[in-house]
Amino acid sequence: MAKIGKLVLLGTGLIGGSFALALKRAGMVDQVVGVGRDPRNLERALELGVIDAASHDAAAAAAGADLILLATPVGQMGALMQTIAPRLAPHCIVTDGGSTKQDVVALFHRHLPGHLKACVPGHPIAGSDLSGAAAARYGLFEGRRVVLTPLQESAPEAIAQLTALWQACGAEVFHMDAAEHDSIFAAVSHVPHLVAFAYMNALLDRPNIDACLEFAATGFRDFSRIAGSHPAMWRDIALANREAVVADLRGNISRMQELVALIEAGDTGQLTEYIERASQARVAWDARRKEP
Amino acid sequence: MAKIGKLVLLGTGLIGGSFALALKRAGMVDQVVGVGRDPRNLERALELGVIDAASHDAAAAAAGADLILLATPVGQMGALMQTIAPRLAPHCIVTDGGSTKQDVVALFHRHLPGHLKACVPGHPIAGSDLSGAAAARYGLFEGRRVVLTPLQESAPEAIAQLTALWQACGAEVFHMDAAEHDSIFAAVSHVPHLVAFAYMNALLDRPNIDACLEFAATGFRDFSRIAGSHPAMWRDIALANREAVVADLRGNISRMQELVALIEAGDTGQLTEYIERASQARVAWDARRKEP
Repeated sequence: MAKIGKLVLLGTGLIGGSFALALKRAGMVDQVVGVGRDPRNLERALELGVIDAASHDAAAAAAGADLILLATPVGQMGALMQTIAPRLAPHCIVTDGGSTKQDVVALFHRHLPGHLKACVPGHPIAGSDLSGAAAARYGLFEGRRVVLTPLQESAPEAIAQLTALWQACGAEVFHMDAAEHDSIFAAVSHVPHLVAFAYMNALLDRPNIDACLEFAATGFRDFSRIAGSHPAMWRDIALANREAVVADLRGNISRMQELVALIEAGDTGQLTEYIERASQARVAWDARRKEP
Repeated sequence: MAKIGKLVLLGTGLIGGSFALALKRAGMVDQVVGVGRDPRNLERALELGVIDAASHDAAAAAAGADLILLATPVGQMGALMQTIAPRLAPHCIVTDGGSTKQDVVALFHRHLPGHLKACVPGHPIAGSDLSGAAAARYGLFEGRRVVLTPLQESAPEAIAQLTALWQACGAEVFHMDAAEHDSIFAAVSHVPHLVAFAYMNALLDRPNIDACLEFAATGFRDFSRIAGSHPAMWRDIALANREAVVADLRGNISRMQELVALIEAGDTGQLTEYIERASQARVAWDARRKEP
């Protein structure tokens, strides 16, 4: 597979930075240019060797690029696509690391209509509550999954090359339809985050919040970890995947109302069944997974 | 402080077993008798050196005991108190490891009215999704917190001795009112478990559940870990702390309904504020904690 000459990161944070580091270690890239709005973050990325050059000008950086990774919150991607459109070399693969895919597919169609052959939307499943270039690390994608949701128009060679690059980062690559992707990730990623935000807000409503936080232990720690995630990123995800997310949140609310009713009725048998169904499924998942 | 001659565990699982191991290592106990209903679990506890003798007869075991720890689900504690009542030596301290305290306080009053001086309810904050004697380990309570909720009737010497024993296990010991305890732990422990059970049940309702579980990653792993917890134990907790738990679940439902409304309205500003409030509080908690 052809080595990448110039990789441009539009957004130089955890995902973009770790992608660059992994490709560098695999010897798959010559030069990495990091674009971003926060000069201190770019400086840090240069110091850490995540990028070789920094720029605040996406259009200038895009000129001569062989691969561009949009690794900002999804809400910024449309404007970035517009900015880079006139400067793209015809062969330059454009991909992204967004957590929602139907909206990014629509952005590619709207803003890069003449470049669709080389556009391949993607989603590396390596979330973290950390962000910024300082969080980037070698091996973030080792053993992780990357889902690509190619466009109808994506050229097989572009899909194959991007697949090979993610594999060089140590990832297992899957291809699926963008709608299927968004339905799955609403259920196992977006809604857990939103439920965790709602839980924290309900907790903060309590008059004895300080005592509560004082005695919060490991159950709280793990359950609420994702509530510390990046607000703008998760706001964008919630809005971008609105339909699937709202349907799933409604399902959760209705299951919680059922639980309240069982507890209030003191229905020991039904309550046991309710908890056992959840517990058995979670234990079985844990036994099955081969996750890092 | 006086060494314990005979410690009886009513329930020989994670909490009871780890308490016994820690006291043995601290040289604070001569003999540990484990009582339980599952012969294989007791055999395992003997093999592992968690207990020195096993019994299925709580009354016989209680005779001559200096300290009795009720470490079963709270739902079994009343019957056990009745069983041991006639056999208790006057000096024998009776405590428990239950996650709810107002109900256990009521059980002590109902079933051991002649022994209240030596009764001291407690809650070691060292939950786990693991259970059984095989999960017991030295150091489980190292750096953890133990909350004691003494009765009006508890003798200061009994409180002091039990406090010292938990400290010998490496725990930090707090004393508080049972109602305050139950309010705090509804918020930071019971409700997270119940929300996680509800989430798993909502997830299992989906037609594409297999694909969902296939792509579930670290966010799901941590958020749902406590959904794998012991069903009978958590059913008992939910029912025992019914009032606080239902009020908190209602608060969560209402915060989730608010979130659905913000997403449906596409209210970017309010949605950002909503997530930021949660995220900032969670990040601040993480920065502050000194938890193992």
